[in-house]
Order: sequence, then C-alpha cells, then structure tokens
Amino acid sequence: MTGQTAADVGEFGLIERIIAGLGASGPVLLGTGDDAAVVRPAGDVVISTDTMVEGVHFRPDWSSAEDVGRKAVAACVSDAEAMGAAPVAVVVSLAIPTQTSTEWVDGFSAGVRAECERCGAQLVGGDTTSAPAIVVTATVVGDLGGVTPVTRSGARPGDLVAFAGRLGWAAAGLAALNRGFRSPRAVVVAHRVPEPPYGQGRVAAEAGATAMIDVSDGLLADLGHVARASGARIELDSSAFETTEPQQAVAAAIGGGNPLDFQLTGGDDHALAATFPAGQVPDGWTVIGRVVAGEAVVLVDGAEWESSAPGWRHFGH
Amino acid sequence: MTGQTAADVGEFGLIERIIAGLGASGPVLLGTGDDAAVVRPAGDVVISTDTMVEGVHFRPDWSSAEDVGRKAVAACVSDAEAMGAAPVAVVVSLAIPTQTSTEWVDGFSAGVRAECERCGAQLVGGDTTSAPAIVVTATVVGDLGGVTPVTRSGARPGDLVAFAGRLGWAAAGLAALNRGFRSPRAVVVAHRVPEPPYGQGRVAAEAGATAMIDVSDGLLADLGHVARASGARIELDSSAFETTEPQQAVAAAIGGGNPLDFQLTGGDDHALAATFPAGQVPDGWTVIGRVVAGEAVVLVDGAEWESSAPGWRHFGH
Repeated sequence: MTGQTAADVGEFGLIERIIAGLGASGPVLLGTGDDAAVVRPAGDVVISTDTMVEGVHFRPDWSSAEDVGRKAVAACVSDAEAMGAAPVAVVVSLAIPTQTSTEWVDGFSAGVRAECERCGAQLVGGDTTSAPAIVVTATVVGDLGGVTPVTRSGARPGDLVAFAGRLGWAAAGLAALNRGFRSPRAVVVAHRVPEPPYGQGRVAAEAGATAMIDVSDGLLADLGHVARASGARIELDSSAFETTEPQQAVAAAIGGGNPLDFQLTGGDDHALAATFPAGQVPDGWTVIGRVVAGEAVVLVDGAEWESSAPGWRHFGH
Repeated sequence: MTGQTAADVGEFGLIERIIAGLGASGPVLLGTGDDAAVVRPAGDVVISTDTMVEGVHFRPDWSSAEDVGRKAVAACVSDAEAMGAAPVAVVVSLAIPTQTSTEWVDGFSAGVRAECERCGAQLVGGDTTSAPAIVVTATVVGDLGGVTPVTRSGARPGDLVAFAGRLGWAAAGLAALNRGFRSPRAVVVAHRVPEPPYGQGRVAAEAGATAMIDVSDGLLADLGHVARASGARIELDSSAFETTEPQQAVAAAIGGGNPLDFQLTGGDDHALAATFPAGQVPDGWTVIGRVVAGEAVVLVDGAEWESSAPGWRHFGH
C-alpha cells in the first residue's frame, strides 16, 4: 500500500518492515526478535556508535533514504575497522517524525542492509520511535580475532604515515551541493554514500600498524589526534597527494581554492590513516608522510597548513 | 561558569565533560577516547539498544537530566539482563538542541555514570550532536559468561511463571503526573527512575529459566511475546499479585480503576518475567502463574483480561 506513514503502521509495524527476512549466521547466534542479539566473537570485541541527524548530517533533498541508511552503518563500522577489527553485528536506532512515509523507512532499511552486506556485518537489532526530526544511531560490535587493537597512541619516530580509501571526495561533493551544483557526479555521490576501504583496517593491523584512525574530521585534524595521543610530530608531503579531476573542477568552480584542501580537511569519506614501521606499509595504502620526534603537531611540507578555500575550518590544535 | 550552552562549548567540549575521569578496568581493556572501545568478554556477548526522545519518552519538566541518563542506561541494560547476561560496556549517543545548558549535560552524564555503576557496566564511548529535540540512544554489550542465553521461546507446559523487580510503579506514577499530581512520591519517583532488579537475569539463567523477557510494554503484552514465541498458553493468577498502597491511592484518585491494571499493563519499571521448571524458581522471584499447553495467549484467572482503567490500552494479540 502506498502513501502510508510511520504513524499508520505503528512501532511494531515499522520494526517488522525493518527486520523482515533477516537471519543469523556465523558469529551471530541470535539476531533480531528477542530482548538482545547474541554474538560469539573469536577474540576481543570493539564497540563504537555514531549518530546522524536530519538537517545536521544530511539533507533529505540531497540524500535518499537508502543513502542515509548506508552512511549510518559506514560511519560506525569505519571506527571498528580503525582498531583492526572485523565488523560483526550492527544495531540501528531510527527516530522519525510520525508523518515519515513507510517508503522512506523501507529505503532506509535497504540501505542499512546493503552496507552491512558490503562490510560483512549483520543487522541484529534496533529500536524505532517517533521524534521531531530523523535521528539515526548505529552501533557496531567488531571482532578483533587474535589481533592487538591499533590505537591512536602508538606512532613512533621513523614510522611512515599512509592512508587507504578516498580523501576529500565527500567534501568536494558537499562544496558543490552547497553552491547549488549537482555535479561532478562522482564527488556528489561520494558525499551521499561513502566508500570506506572495508577490510583494510585488519590488513593494516596484521601488517604491524602502530597507530590508526578513521578519517572523519579531516586528515589534518585526525592525524592531529594521532600526533597528540602519540606525543610525536607528523610531517606530510603535499607532493604525495594526487588530487582528482572532479576535485580540481569543484575547487575552480567555487572560487579557485586549492583542491588539496579537500583532501587535507574533508571528512566523511571514512578513509583510514595509519602509521607503519618503514618497510611494513601494505599494498593498498599510499604513503603521504612520516612520524618524527618533536612537538605533537601535523605539518605539511614543513609548515602548518594554511587553508586557501574560504569557509574551510583551519586545523586547530 | 554558569549559563553556558552546548553551542558555547562545542562537540569536543561536550565530549570532554561527558568522559572526564572515566577509566577502564576488568573486562574493559580500552574505554573512551579512541575510535572504539575494546572489551574482553568471558563468553558470548549480547547487544541491545534503546532510544528515548524528549516529549515522547520523558518530559523535561517531570524528569531531571540525571533521571534521563539513568533511565536510558537502565532500559538497554535490562534487555541484556533478560538474556541472562551481565552488562559490561555501555555507549551513549546524546543529540541535543544547541541551546541545551551544559548543566543539563553534566546532570545527564552523572545519571549515566550512576546507573552504570549500579548495574556493573562501564561507560566506554558515545557520540554527541545537535538535534531539534533531546534524543538519547544507549547501547549495551553484555557478557553471557558460560551461560546459555535465555530467549523468549523456551517456555514449556508445566513451567511456572514468575517475576523479579517491580510491576506497575512507573505506570501509577505516570498516571498521577498526567492528572497533575506530584504524589504519591514513591510511584512518581519510580516513573522518573526505574529500579531494575540488576543481577536477577543471571540468577534466573543459572537457575534454569526456560524463557525470559524484560517487562517494558507491560506484563500481559510482554508475556504475550513469550507465549507466542514459545507456542504455549500462559495463565496468571490475580491473587498472586500484591498491589501497593500508592497504586491503590492513584487508582482511586484517577477514578476508581483497578490497581491491578498498573501491574498487568504498565511498563517502564523494567522488571524481569521468566518461566522456570517447577521447583527451580530462585529466591527473589514471585510466582504469578503457569505455562500450559494450548493457544498462545495470556489469561488472568482463566479469562482474557479486561482492563478497568479508562485510557489503558487493552492487551492486543
């Protein structure tokens, strides 16, 4: 039936739509439908939670329901990956206005499931309620297996700094949307749905990463967290970055800013940044700098970064 | 400094207030401050999440910030208890209007910590963001140790039905508040802060409970979930319930309803209801009925319950 709202089907009706057909397999012993899900991890577990609010983290006219579902899962799973864990189970809380269409809820649910499938996690539970705006909270439980968790504090002088995934795609897309453009399509789509480098967190941990972080606040800000936690200086080499054609196009269109800004200060792509002892950087990772002794700060080409694009927040430390 | 708002201190300022002084001990290897927390469980883990929205689940003029924090933790932990698990780690997402006072945030944080301490869990992470209304999502990871999880589906004819904790206190308190009363104090306080029977979930599991559920929708509704999941009939004996003086007073004050209504249909006290083989009901649990073969339905004194209090939702099955 079309034209139905959340209020028409009620809380239990919504839950039924969201969990329809879900099963449980592998490490998930019990999925949805009871008081809690049950998981059998192989090693220590990691837990992280992430919230997205309509009008703050996404605009319903820019992001489809499926986009929102995918992004919510990606955001928390990426934090689990950044510890070296494999995402196992996800629970999702969905607070929505009563007039929200069931079509939106179905799209959201499809997005959550699609992203869970991409990253190898299972949707095992959640909660639904009414609220004045859409508020989505996704929480992941990840399994470290036999791997030691990779924190932010282990970077040591001599280590190389590298990243996996994409930098500054979502930020370029958001900048375009903010100016009223709907293209370049590649970066606009990247704003709507991130493509985290699923699996690379575990790869990095097994390769001996000494520190790792999910890039959500922007590369400089997030490497700043690593530098402070590790008590070390991080130096980046701007020539190691390759800006893409869409990033250059957006930078030109919004007033001639430096396209590198997107890569250094843009979040939301959920890339991973990590430090490795020399010689241990795994395939799929791009070396962009090094860890040296000194003050806990991030430098680019030996200097503190000055952002050229108006409106970008300068890295604060 | 007084008079500050969430907007004044910003996201990182709020997070610092909420996590200040938190440590990590026992099964929590790494608490707040990194991409994810790390927990070392002794057995299988359970996961459950619960969301509370201002104006839907609580009214800021009836519930203090501390009440809201305590209730949010209690709601999810109670689900973990209902599987037989010990709560280990809690993550809390707090979405608040930018004009929310830092005093409210501090009170909320104190409530979260107090309830974590009561139930034996540790606050290990979370997220904060702005939103049009207060939306709190708490997620718990519980440890089953060597215990087999107790689901809703294991009730068998011949089992006894029992509960632990309080029934209908919060509902009586809410009924009083809805009529403009601020007393009886015992039940009004119970509406604001539940007192779940922490630890009794594990006690029940170890005693051999065959099915268990957290009473959040009301005893009849929640035992209805057990009856359906188990394919059995549940018969309750109204003489086994003892209504309290405050419940009688509220029932009289709101128009002469049956005070038993509160106990049979009121949620929010987070009692536990469980079924046990005869002779295995542990101390601290009150027997209120039995499981028999037949249609999946809950009966009181052999008949479907007819609620006497106006405005109460009849048990729907």
